[in-house]
Amino acid sequence: MTRVHVWGASGYAAAELIRMLHAHESVEIGVLESDSHAGELLADHFPLLRATPYRFDGSGSVLETAKKGDVAITAGVEDEARAVVPLLLARGVRVIDLSALYRFDPSAVYGLTEWQRGAIADAQLVANPGCYPTAALLALLPLAPVGSPRHVVIDAKSGITGAGRTPRVGSLFAEVSGEIRAYGLSGHRHQPEIEHYLRAGAIEAQITFTPHVVPLARGMLVDAYVLFDAPVDAGAVKTAYAQAYHSSSFVRLLGSTRAPSVAAVIGTNDAELRIDAQGCVVRAICAIDNLGKGAAGQAVQNLNVMLGYPEESGFGARAVVA
Amino acid sequence: MTRVHVWGASGYAAAELIRMLHAHESVEIGVLESDSHAGELLADHFPLLRATPYRFDGSGSVLETAKKGDVAITAGVEDEARAVVPLLLARGVRVIDLSALYRFDPSAVYGLTEWQRGAIADAQLVANPGCYPTAALLALLPLAPVGSPRHVVIDAKSGITGAGRTPRVGSLFAEVSGEIRAYGLSGHRHQPEIEHYLRAGAIEAQITFTPHVVPLARGMLVDAYVLFDAPVDAGAVKTAYAQAYHSSSFVRLLGSTRAPSVAAVIGTNDAELRIDAQGCVVRAICAIDNLGKGAAGQAVQNLNVMLGYPEESGFGARAVVA
Amino acid sequence: MTRVHVWGASGYAAAELIRMLHAHESVEIGVLESDSHAGELLADHFPLLRATPYRFDGSGSVLETAKKGDVAITAGVEDEARAVVPLLLARGVRVIDLSALYRFDPSAVYGLTEWQRGAIADAQLVANPGCYPTAALLALLPLAPVGSPRHVVIDAKSGITGAGRTPRVGSLFAEVSGEIRAYGLSGHRHQPEIEHYLRAGAIEAQITFTPHVVPLARGMLVDAYVLFDAPVDAGAVKTAYAQAYHSSSFVRLLGSTRAPSVAAVIGTNDAELRIDAQGCVVRAICAIDNLGKGAAGQAVQNLNVMLGYPEESGFGARAVVA
Amino acid sequence: MTRVHVWGASGYAAAELIRMLHAHESVEIGVLESDSHAGELLADHFPLLRATPYRFDGSGSVLETAKKGDVAITAGVEDEARAVVPLLLARGVRVIDLSALYRFDPSAVYGLTEWQRGAIADAQLVANPGCYPTAALLALLPLAPVGSPRHVVIDAKSGITGAGRTPRVGSLFAEVSGEIRAYGLSGHRHQPEIEHYLRAGAIEAQITFTPHVVPLARGMLVDAYVLFDAPVDAGAVKTAYAQAYHSSSFVRLLGSTRAPSVAAVIGTNDAELRIDAQGCVVRAICAIDNLGKGAAGQAVQNLNVMLGYPEESGFGARAVVA
Repeated sequence: MTRVHVWGASGYAAAELIRMLHAHESVEIGVLESDSHAGELLADHFPLLRATPYRFDGSGSVLETAKKGDVAITAGVEDEARAVVPLLLARGVRVIDLSALYRFDPSAVYGLTEWQRGAIADAQLVANPGCYPTAALLALLPLAPVGSPRHVVIDAKSGITGAGRTPRVGSLFAEVSGEIRAYGLSGHRHQPEIEHYLRAGAIEAQITFTPHVVPLARGMLVDAYVLFDAPVDAGAVKTAYAQAYHSSSFVRLLGSTRAPSVAAVIGTNDAELRIDAQGCVVRAICAIDNLGKGAAGQAVQNLNVMLGYPEESGFGARAVVA
Repeated sequence: MTRVHVWGASGYAAAELIRMLHAHESVEIGVLESDSHAGELLADHFPLLRATPYRFDGSGSVLETAKKGDVAITAGVEDEARAVVPLLLARGVRVIDLSALYRFDPSAVYGLTEWQRGAIADAQLVANPGCYPTAALLALLPLAPVGSPRHVVIDAKSGITGAGRTPRVGSLFAEVSGEIRAYGLSGHRHQPEIEHYLRAGAIEAQITFTPHVVPLARGMLVDAYVLFDAPVDAGAVKTAYAQAYHSSSFVRLLGSTRAPSVAAVIGTNDAELRIDAQGCVVRAICAIDNLGKGAAGQAVQNLNVMLGYPEESGFGARAVVA
Repeated sequence: MTRVHVWGASGYAAAELIRMLHAHESVEIGVLESDSHAGELLADHFPLLRATPYRFDGSGSVLETAKKGDVAITAGVEDEARAVVPLLLARGVRVIDLSALYRFDPSAVYGLTEWQRGAIADAQLVANPGCYPTAALLALLPLAPVGSPRHVVIDAKSGITGAGRTPRVGSLFAEVSGEIRAYGLSGHRHQPEIEHYLRAGAIEAQITFTPHVVPLARGMLVDAYVLFDAPVDAGAVKTAYAQAYHSSSFVRLLGSTRAPSVAAVIGTNDAELRIDAQGCVVRAICAIDNLGKGAAGQAVQNLNVMLGYPEESGFGARAVVA
Repeated sequence: MTRVHVWGASGYAAAELIRMLHAHESVEIGVLESDSHAGELLADHFPLLRATPYRFDGSGSVLETAKKGDVAITAGVEDEARAVVPLLLARGVRVIDLSALYRFDPSAVYGLTEWQRGAIADAQLVANPGCYPTAALLALLPLAPVGSPRHVVIDAKSGITGAGRTPRVGSLFAEVSGEIRAYGLSGHRHQPEIEHYLRAGAIEAQITFTPHVVPLARGMLVDAYVLFDAPVDAGAVKTAYAQAYHSSSFVRLLGSTRAPSVAAVIGTNDAELRIDAQGCVVRAICAIDNLGKGAAGQAVQNLNVMLGYPEESGFGARAVVA
């Protein structure tokens, strides 16, 4: 039984994380930090936590309470991570950080679980990947042995919880329903993360990345189009993906009769992946829950790897279709 | 051709109002006031105004520009109305105020058009009704001659634009989609307005009013249940509604094969009304667009009455189904 | 470990049921009958079952396979129940029927769990209640000791899965989104069921029942307004509900700072209930998942009662917010 | 004043078409054909036509009534077009066909208005383009003078009305909400249409086309990524689009501060287009209403061109944001 604290517990990813930790048989929930809501019930803020008994605590409580052997998951913004992560590490608390702060930092392990299991197991600090990079990298990294692509086009569609719970006009129901919006057209902050880890995985192509908001609360679909200079061997592609994920229970490789479904992965840590190779092009489509495999789910999966639990621990619950 | 200014032009009702005024053949748009967005294009803030050329102006411009013979529609909050309406009236500008400030004020005419045409025609100041009161009063006022009810239950369902465009957690897409929420359970600010004007219309019953937010950007359905002590005469009820609205082109009385449809009134000034009398109960269901007949549409209808234009002026355009 | 068969396994309630049975530690899934899809994978039909291995079987298989000690849940239409339920009972298979066929039948126990535990425990045949009756009766039955109401108004809002998965124009996305629709205005088939069981519970008032479809896939909110001739004792009301549900872990009585939330109950067997008494009126608002407590969840709860398992068995999983 | 008949008047595109024709000052509506609904009011089938007086007629009526000088718009499936279009043409009735039947037929003019004005003006038979081809071709055809691309990736997102009003499981609210679905992954019927007219426009690249359904009733966003072998001249690209559309009032070229918005074009015949050139890639994003510029709107625009009316006739009405 490991005690897990959550720092920055009032956002959408944190709520999903707490829901998952609450169901995790080997986890005891410690401090759930939110200075702005200290003392309030989480049940009053999040419908999906209505049946839980937890209260938010002030920021002081984490540092007073957290001890060597505990894990802290920091789910706040980068400035909060910058302030608190070093203090936690200094106490011997292992940390999984959901912000972008440590994703390029050599002192942290990049927590794309399926590609970093060994390093994560030993890590004191895991930088949990962004949601777009998670889906894009799961879709693309297996291609490295297939050849050297010229260009990769990534067209991504995300639910609005990816923009967080801080109220903004662009996240209002009346702005999101009935609309599809491309954004970050002059450059999105996740593009360097995708490029960096593609290159680390020996894929050197130019990247064009276009994220969109669609009328979904949660869920993400990423269509990646990989363009080679010569026709690719479809069999080799198939083999590459099968090898990459044959021991990964959360990645579901779909055959030619199914398409990845956002509804199928909501509330889970699953990724659905469909690969089509034709001529010089490989199209890889990946569906994840942006709050699941794209944030909280992957954090719990990383927690399991860090602690030596089975990767699937805590994920017994399957989500609903709604 | 009348020049019309809009004060507080950056909310949802104001945008719908500007769309309607833009299409109005006898209206010239004057100043569109928004201090916080002065100088910016409306097209950059509202998709439905993307094809219009207007810019927001600062608050000073309205008072400098508005002249006797102009009309100003004040679409801001009550404090703004309190500050600016007297100044406009003093300049001889006729005012339609969309806030709640003047709805109980004897110096203003309550702008429920179908029931106040004569007074509106002569008014210097019209207090435009709230959205819930508009739907509830249209549904209930015809019943006065039928008898004296014991109780009225009003169960109302509204799209989220009724909560305005100021960002709040409760208006976020991820909070509104997948949810129905009753609110104001300890008393909603529209209840006294409904009670006051029911009593003014000689309906003295006790009122129970429960508003709900449903996953709609716009649109409102109000189910009113009127309970009498004795069985009501269904024929008399039918006659009462027919007489009340026979000359009202925006009120559509439906027969027994149709139900009021929010989708049928979106983007219009229409109200759909269905009445069923059975035993001691009359059920009156009313559908309006909360931004149409419930706000901007009724303001334009009142403008037409004030200026002697046909009530239907500017409403040629019918909305889409989406 | 009990073997459970599902007859009519291709609808929305059946899929939710199979999801719940799949997670139930004391249940082994038997035959999942659907003649029209025999041999096909459930995973290909329902996103939420994507991670399960089951296939549909033909109708013959249930009757060949089901044995004394098994339970069958019949989730098809009434004609199917009429044909198959007697055959199953004759084999000694206990049956929970989700159709309306046996809801007034003295050979069956009406499966409103919180009010029928004893009879359900011994039943061979349980008639699972309709979704609207479930929410309405949970909201109203505790009032019997409080007094004799004159009238009950029930204004209900349901997600569209209540209309089933058979394709109809009225269930299309383009007809449901952007719309609220009252229906059954000349009488809905659930009204007699509500009336019958209110009377069985000693509540004799006249009922006005108006169902609505709102833009939700799943979820239901029922507002019940109970009108008495004299003021009610708010304390007595509070006590009545507390007594009715103090040992019912799925019914959550909310205090005066919370409203029932559809999002809080999706994917669960929970009901949220808020009661306000004022003057001669009691307003009881109940939120359930129409596929959860309103169908599949209550069926599993009844299964637990029939088999002597804890009522909460199989409900460990909490749903997501989406 | 031209009399216009609609054949196959019971689908979504037909309803939008009739709404537009109803508002068109130079059009008199003739026969609205639907054998299956003959005699019924359109107002009972479509909320957005609730305020119109029209009834469906049987198929015989069109052929009896239509005369030389009339226009018929055939909005049914290909088999219906095959049966009726030749008969109409033989009577001297000019035809705009919305099915795919004549889109490769040399006897018809392909009705992509901005690129075919001269031929449309003289045409007896116009093959109205598909919705995906309309958006894709508007986005891509201006690039012909810029250079010879190696590959074009078209990632398209559509509202579900594109699938028509015939009830199918995949079009149900409960299947579309909360989901994004790529489809046609083994080849979509619109791909040959896109390829054919790109080649006719001197763009020879390989095409990868992936359509998706998103949770929208209507609206379409197409992201086209054009990959060249050498860096493109951004200035030349900008000039090419400006020249292509400088006299096209329905195509709005957006600058670098705006993204195409589906909400901005719903209910209109507008297309919003944003072009970004960087290195060897041009990204062209196009937003249209699939029922507007993608179907009914373009049909009316073509009607105007055929009859010598201003292209904008009948489009005075602007849609609502909802």
